Amino acid sequence: MRKEKDLIGFHEVPDEVYYGIQTIRAMENFPITGYHPHVELIRALGWVKAAAALANIKVGALSPSVGKAIVQAAREVTEGKFNQQFVVDVIQGGAGTSMNMNANEVIANRAIELMGGTKGEYAKVHPNSHVNMAQSTNDVFPTAIRIACLNVSKDLLSALEELKAEFNKKAKEFDSILKMGRTHLQDAVPIRLGQEFAAYGQMLERDIRRIQEATKSLCIINMGATAVGTGLNADPKYIEAVSELLRELTGLPLIRANNLVDATQNTDAFLEVSGALKTLAVNLSKIANDLRLMASGPRTGFGEINLPPMQPGSSIMPGKVNPVMAEVVNQVSFQVQGNDFTIALACGAGQLELNVMEPVIVFNLLQSLDILRNVLRVFRERCVAGITANQSRCRELVENSVGIITAINPHVGYEVASQIAKEAITTGRPVRDIVLEKGALTSRELDVILNPFEMTEPGISGAELLKR
Amino acid sequence: MRKEKDLIGFHEVPDEVYYGIQTIRAMENFPITGYHPHVELIRALGWVKAAAALANIKVGALSPSVGKAIVQAAREVTEGKFNQQFVVDVIQGGAGTSMNMNANEVIANRAIELMGGTKGEYAKVHPNSHVNMAQSTNDVFPTAIRIACLNVSKDLLSALEELKAEFNKKAKEFDSILKMGRTHLQDAVPIRLGQEFAAYGQMLERDIRRIQEATKSLCIINMGATAVGTGLNADPKYIEAVSELLRELTGLPLIRANNLVDATQNTDAFLEVSGALKTLAVNLSKIANDLRLMASGPRTGFGEINLPPMQPGSSIMPGKVNPVMAEVVNQVSFQVQGNDFTIALACGAGQLELNVMEPVIVFNLLQSLDILRNVLRVFRERCVAGITANQSRCRELVENSVGIITAINPHVGYEVASQIAKEAITTGRPVRDIVLEKGALTSRELDVILNPFEMTEPGISGAELLKR
Amino acid sequence: MRKEKDLIGFHEVPDEVYYGIQTIRAMENFPITGYHPHVELIRALGWVKAAAALANIKVGALSPSVGKAIVQAAREVTEGKFNQQFVVDVIQGGAGTSMNMNANEVIANRAIELMGGTKGEYAKVHPNSHVNMAQSTNDVFPTAIRIACLNVSKDLLSALEELKAEFNKKAKEFDSILKMGRTHLQDAVPIRLGQEFAAYGQMLERDIRRIQEATKSLCIINMGATAVGTGLNADPKYIEAVSELLRELTGLPLIRANNLVDATQNTDAFLEVSGALKTLAVNLSKIANDLRLMASGPRTGFGEINLPPMQPGSSIMPGKVNPVMAEVVNQVSFQVQGNDFTIALACGAGQLELNVMEPVIVFNLLQSLDILRNVLRVFRERCVAGITANQSRCRELVENSVGIITAINPHVGYEVASQIAKEAITTGRPVRDIVLEKGALTSRELDVILNPFEMTEPGISGAELLKR
Amino acid sequence: MRKEKDLIGFHEVPDEVYYGIQTIRAMENFPITGYHPHVELIRALGWVKAAAALANIKVGALSPSVGKAIVQAAREVTEGKFNQQFVVDVIQGGAGTSMNMNANEVIANRAIELMGGTKGEYAKVHPNSHVNMAQSTNDVFPTAIRIACLNVSKDLLSALEELKAEFNKKAKEFDSILKMGRTHLQDAVPIRLGQEFAAYGQMLERDIRRIQEATKSLCIINMGATAVGTGLNADPKYIEAVSELLRELTGLPLIRANNLVDATQNTDAFLEVSGALKTLAVNLSKIANDLRLMASGPRTGFGEINLPPMQPGSSIMPGKVNPVMAEVVNQVSFQVQGNDFTIALACGAGQLELNVMEPVIVFNLLQSLDILRNVLRVFRERCVAGITANQSRCRELVENSVGIITAINPHVGYEVASQIAKEAITTGRPVRDIVLEKGALTSRELDVILNPFEMTEPGISGAELLKR
Repeated sequence: MRKEKDLIGFHEVPDEVYYGIQTIRAMENFPITGYHPHVELIRALGWVKAAAALANIKVGALSPSVGKAIVQAAREVTEGKFNQQFVVDVIQGGAGTSMNMNANEVIANRAIELMGGTKGEYAKVHPNSHVNMAQSTNDVFPTAIRIACLNVSKDLLSALEELKAEFNKKAKEFDSILKMGRTHLQDAVPIRLGQEFAAYGQMLERDIRRIQEATKSLCIINMGATAVGTGLNADPKYIEAVSELLRELTGLPLIRANNLVDATQNTDAFLEVSGALKTLAVNLSKIANDLRLMASGPRTGFGEINLPPMQPGSSIMPGKVNPVMAEVVNQVSFQVQGNDFTIALACGAGQLELNVMEPVIVFNLLQSLDILRNVLRVFRERCVAGITANQSRCRELVENSVGIITAINPHVGYEVASQIAKEAITTGRPVRDIVLEKGALTSRELDVILNPFEMTEPGISGAELLKR
Repeated sequence: MRKEKDLIGFHEVPDEVYYGIQTIRAMENFPITGYHPHVELIRALGWVKAAAALANIKVGALSPSVGKAIVQAAREVTEGKFNQQFVVDVIQGGAGTSMNMNANEVIANRAIELMGGTKGEYAKVHPNSHVNMAQSTNDVFPTAIRIACLNVSKDLLSALEELKAEFNKKAKEFDSILKMGRTHLQDAVPIRLGQEFAAYGQMLERDIRRIQEATKSLCIINMGATAVGTGLNADPKYIEAVSELLRELTGLPLIRANNLVDATQNTDAFLEVSGALKTLAVNLSKIANDLRLMASGPRTGFGEINLPPMQPGSSIMPGKVNPVMAEVVNQVSFQVQGNDFTIALACGAGQLELNVMEPVIVFNLLQSLDILRNVLRVFRERCVAGITANQSRCRELVENSVGIITAINPHVGYEVASQIAKEAITTGRPVRDIVLEKGALTSRELDVILNPFEMTEPGISGAELLKR
Repeated sequence: MRKEKDLIGFHEVPDEVYYGIQTIRAMENFPITGYHPHVELIRALGWVKAAAALANIKVGALSPSVGKAIVQAAREVTEGKFNQQFVVDVIQGGAGTSMNMNANEVIANRAIELMGGTKGEYAKVHPNSHVNMAQSTNDVFPTAIRIACLNVSKDLLSALEELKAEFNKKAKEFDSILKMGRTHLQDAVPIRLGQEFAAYGQMLERDIRRIQEATKSLCIINMGATAVGTGLNADPKYIEAVSELLRELTGLPLIRANNLVDATQNTDAFLEVSGALKTLAVNLSKIANDLRLMASGPRTGFGEINLPPMQPGSSIMPGKVNPVMAEVVNQVSFQVQGNDFTIALACGAGQLELNVMEPVIVFNLLQSLDILRNVLRVFRERCVAGITANQSRCRELVENSVGIITAINPHVGYEVASQIAKEAITTGRPVRDIVLEKGALTSRELDVILNPFEMTEPGISGAELLKR
Repeated sequence: MRKEKDLIGFHEVPDEVYYGIQTIRAMENFPITGYHPHVELIRALGWVKAAAALANIKVGALSPSVGKAIVQAAREVTEGKFNQQFVVDVIQGGAGTSMNMNANEVIANRAIELMGGTKGEYAKVHPNSHVNMAQSTNDVFPTAIRIACLNVSKDLLSALEELKAEFNKKAKEFDSILKMGRTHLQDAVPIRLGQEFAAYGQMLERDIRRIQEATKSLCIINMGATAVGTGLNADPKYIEAVSELLRELTGLPLIRANNLVDATQNTDAFLEVSGALKTLAVNLSKIANDLRLMASGPRTGFGEINLPPMQPGSSIMPGKVNPVMAEVVNQVSFQVQGNDFTIALACGAGQLELNVMEPVIVFNLLQSLDILRNVLRVFRERCVAGITANQSRCRELVENSVGIITAINPHVGYEVASQIAKEAITTGRPVRDIVLEKGALTSRELDVILNPFEMTEPGISGAELLKR
């Protein structure tokens, strides 16, 4: 055990750990969720600390020897070597101060080691004076959040592109499968299964655009702001250097905010991203619901498509297979929507120069990004890619439907069409039979009008008949 | 035009209106939604003012002549005679001060008239000194909200009882209709349609209990609290009297809070009620979704039940009828859930001695109560009461299903049952045929096992066969 | 009374009304909120109907005489002449069919009148066959929603620009007022009041950009989609013409969707816009909270700024004035956030070819746009524009604070600085005195370091002292 | 590696693991959050399986030797011996089937071991036929959720009782500390600090009552329902026995639902509990906000109370201490509110005989219970218990305030009081001085009226003066 001291007093610290007294206090203060910080957030903190040290060396504020050790230690953090040393709960008081201090302490102690010292010899490398030099939690933490979110969102966007491509591929595969379109869950007019899948692809295209647009806001960082955005204690040359270095280290298109006060206190960029994720979540839920409906059955539902069976569906009903991959999409969607609510509440709780609720924001935002990315991948691989169509069932339903009356409407008028529809519904007889019986149209005319592909593209089905 | 004066200065007031300068300022300050206060809230304010005046007369603080005029004017407010004079927007700053002052001014001016004076002669009856005597917005407004909500919730509970009764009636009507039960939208095991409707009734029973329980919290009022709950300027005898009088006037089981400070600053009772309404809303949405699913078709959906047609369903598709009454239930459900969110945000914004966000709370809470009551009534009359079952379709689906394999399972074992199920699914053949073909069971045994009523009550279907 | 007939049967219609049987059925079916449709939605329906009629004339589907009458009637609708005839509740079943039929019936009857007929003579002009020709609720209603929202959002954006400009103006006015910056509501380091106001302006700048971006999605319309997006019964030439005509009539940059199936069934554009409004709402709430905090007092709060008094604040406490304009901003913010929840629920409830929950979406979306626009205007005029600063109070708080120790830190080291801070807090003595007493710095050095303007711009305050 | 087989096909299973093929499929299908099931849920599954086996032995369906082994294995699960073997992600498709099968497989393999067999020898003890006998995921999982939630909620209620007691203790400690009451964050009338703390205690008292009431609904379980609530394949005697046994094993007041169909498909009990937790969360946030406001400072805020310092507050500002324990309460509150949203969405997604979204419900509900319990404990120990009051500061603010004018009001009239208030505000002079200067009251009269304790209890302060 070593003994460390801070503003509050002394505390023992196990010899082997790289974190120090402030991290330990935070562990004691915040035994909330039991979840440790996201690895991408740890990496991001490593980059921020490395960039700051390099910038401080550059402006002569940090001695090269100390600075070099800090940079090396910080790099090791980005490599995941100290992930186990990041132990503060994801939900913590204090705007991320504990998380920042956890990083400062781990890096300081590792740097001390690299310089040949023993953990705790902070005279060599001090968590605050050296590792946190010219920084504040209030610029470090929002910047690290942004970097972490940008990195996860890149993965999410790839997964989204892949799912979109899969739907477009399926749209081609199913392009000639005619099926009944339904509005209000009631028989409407025919549509092609491929058109439905193309619509999913198109919708996801918008989601990609929205997430790309929203994440642009994350690129604006506030390094150099220090405590309240005024940049107190941060050398202007350092400020210039640190964002540039961070851009290089991370490979992300980071930009220094031109209004550091605003960038320090406001968190609307996170809410913007979460809003885009929520919209994606809502869209995914719609797709999952549609697939579950179309796959309902096998005997007593719509039965238009088959989702690939991934696991036995029941512990009691033999042979049952359930749309589990679609169901997990729904659940991720609900989680992301709930997370957005939490984020909105937290973003609305900013006061004056700071929003101290950032820890719960980043926990939820990274979770949303993670679980969306994860579910998009398995949904594509284990569900969408394997969907097959029950072509004959689809066809049968169309032919049996009353909805084709809409196509006949322009040829016989709304009044006659309504009567035929009513009779078909009441008697259960096919529309075709009633039309013929009433002499409303001939069999040949009906063939032209009820051509399935004519019915699913703009224009009056059998328009040429009207011209005669 | 008359000229009135307040802390801010002078303002002209049209001669004909009963409200005064403070109401006019509020109209100018808050042109937000354009919606006027709920009539039940106006009535409740009338009662509060009448009770306060009576109590003030009783303790000798108000002269009987002025007091009597105020009571008469307040009664007229409860009768709806001055509804047009309540003109402050439902969303307003100031914890309802403007709404309270609107009531004070209308009642003062009407009382002045009753005493033979001219509107604006506040020396006769003053909005603050007389009508608001021993009161503060901070006890008047929360009390009025409670009274209004209690009154609307009585109607809501009746409507809910009626809907529950309707479901129970339908449960009996449909008790012998066998249909396929579905889990995950996949064929499961048979169930009776009456059992499904009984489950809706049972669920609503819980909602009734929850709303009754939650509204009990509304009965605790804080009259006498004045500004911050300390009761400053409110005579203890007045405090004792006013709640008692209010209980008599309204006929509601109102109780004076034993901690007036708490009762003045906290709004969790509203959130509690809204939470119960939200749970009802979620339950109603589930019912509406089920009905829409079961009524899907007529030809290409489940087609198990028919909802009564209430209006043509399409401007373009002849003969189409949609489940509009169920759809409006869903939409009311969404509205109520959104309102609950707004209420939660507002309840969470209380600070120290007061929650100034009460206007937006009461607007949303009364709207939720209103639209739930309204939709429950039309949903019952125009949808549930008229539902009919397609008995033969239900039967046909059961017989065609693979799900009945679960009943066969205890007789042949899980492995054999799984094989039969798989074969049935792959080939599309009826389970019965395969069982017989494989010699797994005899036809007579099957008849016993597949008895529909045996399959929908606890126990192994055909258990007696196992005993032999 | 005239008698009209539809699919369901006969119904009497009062002679004087322009709407017909389907509207009456909807009034009977949906007595939910009591709110009538938004005037901008009525106007938008007028434009859609005019454009469709013009396009139908163009392609020869509609006789010029009937077409001209429809166009004239529809124009009158856009002028607000028939607002009283739009009587269907804002929350209604059926994807807006009733709202569309309300428009069809009003326009048909007005067109009949213009042609010299009597209301109800639908042989002359039929609501479905003529007014709704080549249309479906499923393209008409989403298109009308978009037009209405675009028009209200233009006003909202102006109001937002004005508020932003006001904050920027105030930022200049308050640029030299030094005050204490606070993080965690705890004294941090000094900042200038102008910097805080500039941050509000900057934040709103992002909201403007977000709303502009989101509303672009509204410009994509699906006229020609008819029932499910396949364009059944819509002549391709008509489809081409109608969007073009609608663009001209409305003056809005409307674009026909290239995937009509997607554009008909998906509502994510509404959720996107609502999300941008929600982010604005959260930001406005933060501003309102800050202003209320800074204006807290007058004697026992922060007391740094004064909000202009708009109305007496209390019915019981003389002289009290409350921040009512900021409070109404908070409440509007809560309402908009709740509306967003409702919209998300409704958008998530789309099924297959249609989202039938559009009525509740448009009700909430237009309300959010409306109340934000309204509150932005009064907030600017009646609050922000009149804010004054208590310069001496601000100064006094800075000088009395411990937070200035951060500026001294680089000159004396973190350890010494911590000790001074601790002593200052414990004893209540000014930091300056303790520094001098300890001989840590001279009085002249302190003057340089504690220069207020140095402390609020990047860099080490008194950096030149360190170079010596 | 052993090889196992299910409906889908074969899969390898590592020899050392107790789970089997279906668990492995679920791991592959659902790599979503990375979080493993809650230990209380695992324990609850153990109890359910033990009770079911005992009941099956009792009715003679399960051989005593197999049954005994299952019971022993299930007990070991309740003891946490196999926690590492529960590996299915908390967010999973399929209504908890994978979680149930994970339990079935672990218990089967452990039972096989206990009977001297080798893992995978399912002929000895089969996960479905034996461990899951007479059960379905659809009764097992909802029952296990209830048991788990009841157990965590017991802890939560204790923590809540303790916090309430702490506030009541503080209320006594602070009973004689007079301070300014604030409404709208504006000076109102005096109150005692003890009254404020008593109000917190009173509010929590309601939360306790609400949570107790809501959790009662959790006691109603549906064991015996099997797949859809009809109890197919569950012997009535078994049904009778299993609930009774479960009650004994868990020590919880569990009751068998009288409508098993309802109890199987509806999840409103979870939403009810979550709603009660949400209300608690909103209340806690209010308390945390108040404490943060009252502790704002130390020099430039309200400064009325001190929260115990728990950790250094800043990485850059020496001596800064922040209200971190209150901040973490706010964040937990936001998380719980977001979780409630997720739960509401999931509860609203039930369809027909089942709500397949239960996994995401239980994940969020248990998290809410956990983090509330955790934060309540540290909040009490590390914040509330250590709060001290700045008595002289509180007193000073009262005496300097304008708000005491309300007490003078009944003695001089509203008009004169308003003038004094206005003058005090404008000039910054004490109210007392102005009153004396104007000769409105004598110094002795003022002493009587401004008696702090008179001002914070009901009645007119100095009422005896009026009687003279």
